[in-house]
Amino acid sequence: MSLPLTFTALEWADSRQPKFRQLYEHIRRAILDGQLKAGEQLPPSRTLARELKVSRTTVLQAYEHLAAEGYLSGQAGAGTFVSEQVPDQLIRPGVPAAKAAASPTPPLLSKRGAAISQLPASRAPGSPNLLPFRPGVPALWDFPFQQWFRLMSRQSKSLGFEAFGYGDAAGYRSLRRAIAAYLRQSRGVRCEPEQVIIVNGIQQALGLACQLLLDPGDGAWIEDPGYNGAREAMRLTGVRPIAVPLDAEGLLVKAGQEIAPDAKLAYVTPSHQYPLGVVMSLARRLELLEWAARHNAWILEDDYDSEYRYSGKPLAALQGIDHNNRVVYLGTFSKVLFPALRLGYMVVPPALAEPFRLAKDYTDRGNSILEQATLAAFLEEGQLERHLRRMRLLYQERQEALVYWSEKLLGQALRVNPSDTGLHAVGWLEKDRDDRRVAELLRQHEVIASPVSGYTQEFRQAPGLVLGYAPYGEEAIRGALEKVAEVLEVRGE
Amino acid sequence: MSLPLTFTALEWADSRQPKFRQLYEHIRRAILDGQLKAGEQLPPSRTLARELKVSRTTVLQAYEHLAAEGYLSGQAGAGTFVSEQVPDQLIRPGVPAAKAAASPTPPLLSKRGAAISQLPASRAPGSPNLLPFRPGVPALWDFPFQQWFRLMSRQSKSLGFEAFGYGDAAGYRSLRRAIAAYLRQSRGVRCEPEQVIIVNGIQQALGLACQLLLDPGDGAWIEDPGYNGAREAMRLTGVRPIAVPLDAEGLLVKAGQEIAPDAKLAYVTPSHQYPLGVVMSLARRLELLEWAARHNAWILEDDYDSEYRYSGKPLAALQGIDHNNRVVYLGTFSKVLFPALRLGYMVVPPALAEPFRLAKDYTDRGNSILEQATLAAFLEEGQLERHLRRMRLLYQERQEALVYWSEKLLGQALRVNPSDTGLHAVGWLEKDRDDRRVAELLRQHEVIASPVSGYTQEFRQAPGLVLGYAPYGEEAIRGALEKVAEVLEVRGE
Repeated sequence: MSLPLTFTALEWADSRQPKFRQLYEHIRRAILDGQLKAGEQLPPSRTLARELKVSRTTVLQAYEHLAAEGYLSGQAGAGTFVSEQVPDQLIRPGVPAAKAAASPTPPLLSKRGAAISQLPASRAPGSPNLLPFRPGVPALWDFPFQQWFRLMSRQSKSLGFEAFGYGDAAGYRSLRRAIAAYLRQSRGVRCEPEQVIIVNGIQQALGLACQLLLDPGDGAWIEDPGYNGAREAMRLTGVRPIAVPLDAEGLLVKAGQEIAPDAKLAYVTPSHQYPLGVVMSLARRLELLEWAARHNAWILEDDYDSEYRYSGKPLAALQGIDHNNRVVYLGTFSKVLFPALRLGYMVVPPALAEPFRLAKDYTDRGNSILEQATLAAFLEEGQLERHLRRMRLLYQERQEALVYWSEKLLGQALRVNPSDTGLHAVGWLEKDRDDRRVAELLRQHEVIASPVSGYTQEFRQAPGLVLGYAPYGEEAIRGALEKVAEVLEVRGE
Repeated sequence: MSLPLTFTALEWADSRQPKFRQLYEHIRRAILDGQLKAGEQLPPSRTLARELKVSRTTVLQAYEHLAAEGYLSGQAGAGTFVSEQVPDQLIRPGVPAAKAAASPTPPLLSKRGAAISQLPASRAPGSPNLLPFRPGVPALWDFPFQQWFRLMSRQSKSLGFEAFGYGDAAGYRSLRRAIAAYLRQSRGVRCEPEQVIIVNGIQQALGLACQLLLDPGDGAWIEDPGYNGAREAMRLTGVRPIAVPLDAEGLLVKAGQEIAPDAKLAYVTPSHQYPLGVVMSLARRLELLEWAARHNAWILEDDYDSEYRYSGKPLAALQGIDHNNRVVYLGTFSKVLFPALRLGYMVVPPALAEPFRLAKDYTDRGNSILEQATLAAFLEEGQLERHLRRMRLLYQERQEALVYWSEKLLGQALRVNPSDTGLHAVGWLEKDRDDRRVAELLRQHEVIASPVSGYTQEFRQAPGLVLGYAPYGEEAIRGALEKVAEVLEVRGE
């Protein structure tokens, strides 16, 4: 019997793979591509081994595996054959089985999948984190990574083997305890460790809350302008986001009641409205809480960056003055530590702790242990507080630099409102400017600034730029503002 | 003016907090609890400072923060008052605002939330990972944690600051590349790095696939018996799981077509059916692929533990022989490294890579960077292959011990089928046994064994126990089997 042509083409290309495996793969491809036909006999192992200059064991191993997978059949002594079971239409290349399918253009995605695929990307992959003035990024250069990794190394040694198996989906116990203590003390949140659910960040918390608290089609108030991630998390879970305008005291509860009286939930950022920076007044907080209590509606309180309050104590959380268990409180370590940590938390009413644990369990079984344990130690040892103290001073200086230099270099062309809180400030443009166009031009100068209009839904805002300042020293801030002046064609003094 | 009673009760309890903050908190509570009434005047700062033996600055700071939050009002010289804006019903304890609400018993959860809260817990929190024979846990004692943490430490130093900001939601580029290379080589998966989406584990991958590929109410075939996590992921996303029976070649495609011809998806574990261990035959694989191609249906191929093939090469993946882009391939590092790592991956058809990236983005913004980078290095340096080689030998020995000692100690009372693959084997009980009852009794003896009936939906199975053996040495296995013999009242020789 002469050797089938296919074997003469065999090259031992991949030196990292054992030869029997390369031979196996070669024959498998030849069958699937139709070079070896169903029923065709293969050379005896001895012959093939000699021709290919490999050991007979190599050939036998390859044949055995192919037989085990059903590609080959044969009995001892009777020869080895390509299996008859390999249906024709699958082994010939370029003749898809789907040819006979009823629908000529099958939709790839489900309806909700198609809706998801229409969402705007939150950012281009690979877009830089550390170009001024990208908002939402903390001072990565000033994070005590050495200490962090030292803690991590210590935790890796002190955690038992058991901890590296499957854990509690609600989170690592010590971390939940440390977060509860931290929130009680620094944010006035009323909670026990059992109410704390560890998540991958606020984005996941939003999704879990929408799934558990709302049904598809239910309406939810969102701030306009507001955080786009909240709107997208709602769309992802079939919830209908409803834009509600703001005033100087925060979300206009009365407007919400007019626009969508049947809303089941309100998403708010009361400590530092994103992106405008408004702090929700006590009166408005109480109005919102009363609305929620009267309508059995929910409040999602997103407290994403309240740790950075520059004039003294941060405002107490809405959750802490709610007597009716209508608030789900969300926080993250993306802004106080670093975003790539992907750790956040939610504080849920006691009766919801178990449903949220289950939802997290069936969503992704819980978070990675080592980073949770490292974070727990970081909190327990007071390192978080030390870091926050350092960063507060630094960020305050940087915000001052931003305000100072924008006034000096840009005057009325960019009026930066000082902000008591957070990692960004809004710079208002002159009213005939198109903020999206300005942002585009700035990007060409390697300056990133989010246009305020990019955060709006229904309600127009004056043109402005959201300016993150946390990671940048005075020189970088000044340099970037000089480029802004160039783009806005503001004359130097 | 005499000092309000509330201040006499003030104790400087928390020495870690500045006094102004403790005072602030004390007054805030007094207002919210109704001890200080709306409109009530507070003592002048000088008086209060003297009475409390603190500096006047302390009192002024506390007053200022309370005023900023709207709790207090007042003008310079005219005195400080509790704000009139604090609505009565919120500040009196025990009188909930919800009293006036229309519905007397508001449902806490949405309909889907209520359904989620009815899901069985995947396991009790705190239930041990390392008691024989808990299935699904690898040999944690034998994982090279030292090397892993050394790699992690190296990666932590070599990653730039930029990497600790927000990253690509689809995953860390090097890891996606390393996984694509690994899957091409060891599993016959056809893929480019762009098709690889990093997820928190198979559970999350299932949820994303259900959301993007199916609409609420759509039916999906699941294996019966099968992996309960898949069923729950479907319920979580509103998909209707439909039980389809198995035979010795895997999921019965014909039965599926009879039971639910309109199903949009089939979830299968072809390399090592969970929990029975059946390997899907080539004929059945082709039948399934053809069904998917003809009906524009999807196949979710869950390849959770195929890395542990004891007799030579693992079977090639279903994905690799699909010519129609109907397969979404899922894998995890929970079984080959450790579960608490929470890293898995999905390989999606090229046209779906972008929608899946978006869905991951709006689900949780992507995974933590450091563990992704560590894993990438672990793969690139060949450490994964070394670890797998070691573990294959170890697990094979352990399975042999399980088979040997079960035969010796239990004979016909527990017939353990040797399995070519994976981390568990099924031990069949005599047919009049109730496997759930046996599992309960075993738990009292600190032996964990999952009853086969716990994995069934519609189709009865013979009574059996799913026995994970990977983490246990021969002594532990023998000891646990002795307890099984005790529970089953099998006489010793």
